[in-house]
Parts: sequence; structure tokens; C-alpha cells
Amino acid sequence: MTRILFYLDEPGKDVWRPAFEAAMPGVEFLDYPDWGSPDDGPAYAFAWEPELGLIAKYPNIRAVFSLGAGVDHITRDPSIPADLPIIRMSDDGLKEGMAEFVLMTVLMHHRYMPRMMTAQRNRNWQRLFPKRARNVRVGILGYGALGIACAQALKPLGYELAAWSRTTKPAEAGIQHFAGTEQFNDFLARTDILVGLLPSTPETTGLLNKDTMALMPKHASIINVGRGTLVDLDDLVALLDNGHLSGATLDVFAEEPLAADNPLWNHEKINITPHIASITRPETAAEYVTKNIGRIEAGLQPENVLDRARGY
Amino acid sequence: MTRILFYLDEPGKDVWRPAFEAAMPGVEFLDYPDWGSPDDGPAYAFAWEPELGLIAKYPNIRAVFSLGAGVDHITRDPSIPADLPIIRMSDDGLKEGMAEFVLMTVLMHHRYMPRMMTAQRNRNWQRLFPKRARNVRVGILGYGALGIACAQALKPLGYELAAWSRTTKPAEAGIQHFAGTEQFNDFLARTDILVGLLPSTPETTGLLNKDTMALMPKHASIINVGRGTLVDLDDLVALLDNGHLSGATLDVFAEEPLAADNPLWNHEKINITPHIASITRPETAAEYVTKNIGRIEAGLQPENVLDRARGY
Repeated sequence: MTRILFYLDEPGKDVWRPAFEAAMPGVEFLDYPDWGSPDDGPAYAFAWEPELGLIAKYPNIRAVFSLGAGVDHITRDPSIPADLPIIRMSDDGLKEGMAEFVLMTVLMHHRYMPRMMTAQRNRNWQRLFPKRARNVRVGILGYGALGIACAQALKPLGYELAAWSRTTKPAEAGIQHFAGTEQFNDFLARTDILVGLLPSTPETTGLLNKDTMALMPKHASIINVGRGTLVDLDDLVALLDNGHLSGATLDVFAEEPLAADNPLWNHEKINITPHIASITRPETAAEYVTKNIGRIEAGLQPENVLDRARGY
Repeated sequence: MTRILFYLDEPGKDVWRPAFEAAMPGVEFLDYPDWGSPDDGPAYAFAWEPELGLIAKYPNIRAVFSLGAGVDHITRDPSIPADLPIIRMSDDGLKEGMAEFVLMTVLMHHRYMPRMMTAQRNRNWQRLFPKRARNVRVGILGYGALGIACAQALKPLGYELAAWSRTTKPAEAGIQHFAGTEQFNDFLARTDILVGLLPSTPETTGLLNKDTMALMPKHASIINVGRGTLVDLDDLVALLDNGHLSGATLDVFAEEPLAADNPLWNHEKINITPHIASITRPETAAEYVTKNIGRIEAGLQPENVLDRARGY
């Protein structure tokens, strides 16, 4: 019988127990703080932002599954044992949701929707004529499973696509690849609409700042759906206010929820969404965890284990 | 030498002359009121909302090309000779633009973007979790060249797609077809997000009214990108206000531009865009007109001639 130690401090968490019970008949699904004793035998944690020190108190935990694609909410805890596998979420629903959100927001920036929504509030019949998609350069910053799903969704529209990744990826038709620090500036210089999909690591924190965003073409826009730490928000606001950048969609923030008194909320050129670009869906996520536990118990390497040296 | 009689009463019209000069070397491009004399020899009108009575004063006009997909702005003039060919615009840029706009707005309604934008104005971190696309039923009302382009763009996202057309269309994979008056109600009853793409005819005027929209599922939404006359706006507002419908995107109106004092502008559940879903692009449109004039002068039937009996 599999034992799941569940940690989620958010409304609506009651959807998870039935999903695990459906995916793993007979599962012992223990919602924090009812995690039992560390001596109860092997268990797997399934968690989002677990309390600092909590995981280390349960040496019976064989692996920690993140409820989302990011794992920084787990690795921020220095007490977690260095050899404990930490596993990123990567279910199909997550990729599908991200591709939908990115496709929608790229189209919104391409077609001047934020400006037209402002025009609506001002009762202004202001016709703005977008460029053809083939003349709009979209750049995906971070080219893992989610970035690839976004590129596949964008391709049929004919955008001029590029992707940047830390390490070189195999060439593919219809996408110009950039890799490593030495090609980062060239990637920015050719990107009209940037899709941020990088994990949160020391290298990515503040990577989009006044110096780097200034390398983008005038009127470029930023969509950040990976981790909030990627973008220096003061610098972003400065570049929106001086007209170098035309707009931004921010779905993720270094601290969530965004505080009600944060001035970003009513910046005319910023669309804020509450970390809903991609949502882990209980049915598909429980199946993913079940499959991965099966691999661990069969002595195989689980999929999508965190590489602590690179940070994702 | 080809003679084009041009009529467009809108800012930004100066893009048209160079486009025609590029597509038809040596063209005589005559901008109204400098149309010369009706005795100057054969000419083709290229027009948007020409003054009533104007076309009939120039019996040298061999065909009238509409600047857009709709032709009601030409046929409203009862003095136009019954045998004068009226030709709809159907360039590739028009289809591409429509597919982009419909894809974007379907995603926006599916993913509750209008509600999240309201939440942003209220500084409210309100997470709304959309259904999977496969569980969202999109219905395309009007299945000509533009409707087909929209369906092709929506297909890869996995929506449950249907289309309604006046006459039966060939079956195709992934789209449920409905045809004729007798299947109209069934089409509405299964449609969560309706995309209006019908031409303006006596039969389509007010076709979406309180009785027909009430047949749609609760929380359905309406995207109208064809002709403004399709939707009874008082009935739409009533169904939005009583909660039966969840939202609407309106790009077209019976009278354009929408008057600044129209209360629709600040209805919280209505997105208004200024007839920009699909835009005739000068380069591709001039090529389309050139090709079609070539057909007429070769004695062939031009493409996309208005059938006056059916009205489009």
C-alpha cells in the first residue's frame, strides 16, 4: 500500500484525495498535519511550499513530488537531505494549459489587445492594425517540456520563432535556436514578444533587468509565466514608462499572492493573472505521481528528478 | 490600362494607391471624387460604403469590388444595377487575421480572461481554473471561407467543434456539422462559445435574440465577428445581466463606429473591439483584385461574386 504525505496550504485542496484514490486504489492519503509517525514505513511527499524543516523530520520520505513544475518552493528549505529525490510535475494537463495561455497572450500582444481594452474604457473607437504574424518575432526563453509545448502551439500561426536554452538543443524546422550566455543578447535583440519560461535559480534571478531588456527591439513585450524572480519589476516598469517596452503579462511573482497595495495592479501596460497560466490538474497529476512511484519501486530512475547542481 | 475608381472615407486610406500601383503596373488609380467622366471607358470600382446613388452614375463600371468580406455596405444602395457584379474580398490576409482573432477570443472566454481582468482592476488575486479544452464546445455560426479558417486554427487545441451553415457541407473529421433552420436550435443547445460569422441578410438580422440565445447552455458566451446585425444587443445585455450568458466579444456593429455615448462601452461583460478582427491588407487585397479583373477580362466568371438571391 502506498502512503502519500500531502501538503498544500490553499483553498480548494479537497480535490486531491479523490484524484489519488482513483489513481492508486488503496492509497493511504495523509493530509498534513496528520502525517503519522516517521516510523510508519516508506512514504512519498506530494507538496506545495511545505513548511521549512518539515520534510527533514520524516526520514521515511523516499521522494518529494512537487505539485507544480517549479521546485524552488521545496529547495528553499536547507534542511532537506541532499540525496532525497525531488521530482518536478510534468503532466499533460500542465503542458496543455501553458500552451493555451501562451498562445492567447502572444496573440493579445501581437494584436494590441491591451491598448484596445484601454480604448474601450475611454469609449474610443481606435482601430489598430497588427502586423502579419510572419513578421512578428516570438522568443521562448527556456526550452524544456513547457517551452516545446508552447512552440508547437505557436508554429501553425506562422510567427517567426526562436528559443533560448542554457544548453544546446537539437535543431528543428521553423525555430531558430540560441544557447548559452554568449547567445543570450542576440536572442533578446531579435525578440518582439518574449515568453519567460525559466526556472528560478541564482542564474535566472533578475536576468531580465534594465540592461538586458534594453537590448530588445523598441515596443517589444514580455510575457512571464515561469517564475517571478526572472524579471526585475522596477526595471520593467521603468522601460514600460519610458516607452521602450510596449506591454507585459505577468502570471508569476516572487511573492504570491501579489499584495493588494502593490502598484503593479493598476499599471496600464501590465496584465496581471494570478498564477493560472498552467495548472496542475488532479486527475492527470495523480496518474503521473503513480507512474513515477512505480518506477522508483521497480528500481528505475524516476522521471523529472531535480538536478540540484543546475537547479531544475 | 486598368482604371480603378476608389472610394473610402476613412483615415489611413493613402496605403491603397501604392498597393495597386505595385500589383498593376500602369494602373489609373482614381480616388473619389476624381473619378473622371462615365465616358472615359471601362473601369472597376474598389469601394467601402460608397455614397448612395454614386455607383449608378458611372455606367462604365464593370464590377464593384468590396474592400471587405461583407457587401451589405454596397447592396444597401437600391440604385445599383441588378446585373452589375459585386465581388466580396477574400484575400489570404483576411482569413489569417480572422483565424487569429477568433483563436485569441475563444481562448479568452474559455480561460475566463474578462473576469480576471476585472479582478485585476479590483486588485483581487482571484484564481479561476478553466476546463480542459476538450470539454469546451465551440460552435462556428456561418461556415464559409472565414469559418473554415477559424476551425482549422481551433482544431489543434482540442476543442469540441461544431459548425452551422445554411446549406449542408461535406463531412469532415473533428467537426460536427449542423445545417439549415431545422438544426439551428440543436447547434445552439450544444454551444458554450459561439463564433458569429454570418453575413448580413434579412434572415440573419436579429437571429441571435432573447429566444435563441436562451437555448444556449448557462454561462455560454458570444463572439461576433461577422456582421453587427446578427445580434439583438438589448437581448444580449439582458441575458448577460441575468447571468444566463457569461460574456461577449463584439467586433462588429450595425452602425460603426459605435457612438461614444452607447452604454455597451462600459458593460463589464462585453469586450468591444473596433471592427479589427479581420482586416483587408493592401498588398494581398490588390493582388486579389488584379487576379479577379484578369478573369473578367479573359471572359471568365470572377471569384466570390455576390449571389443577390441569397444575399452574400
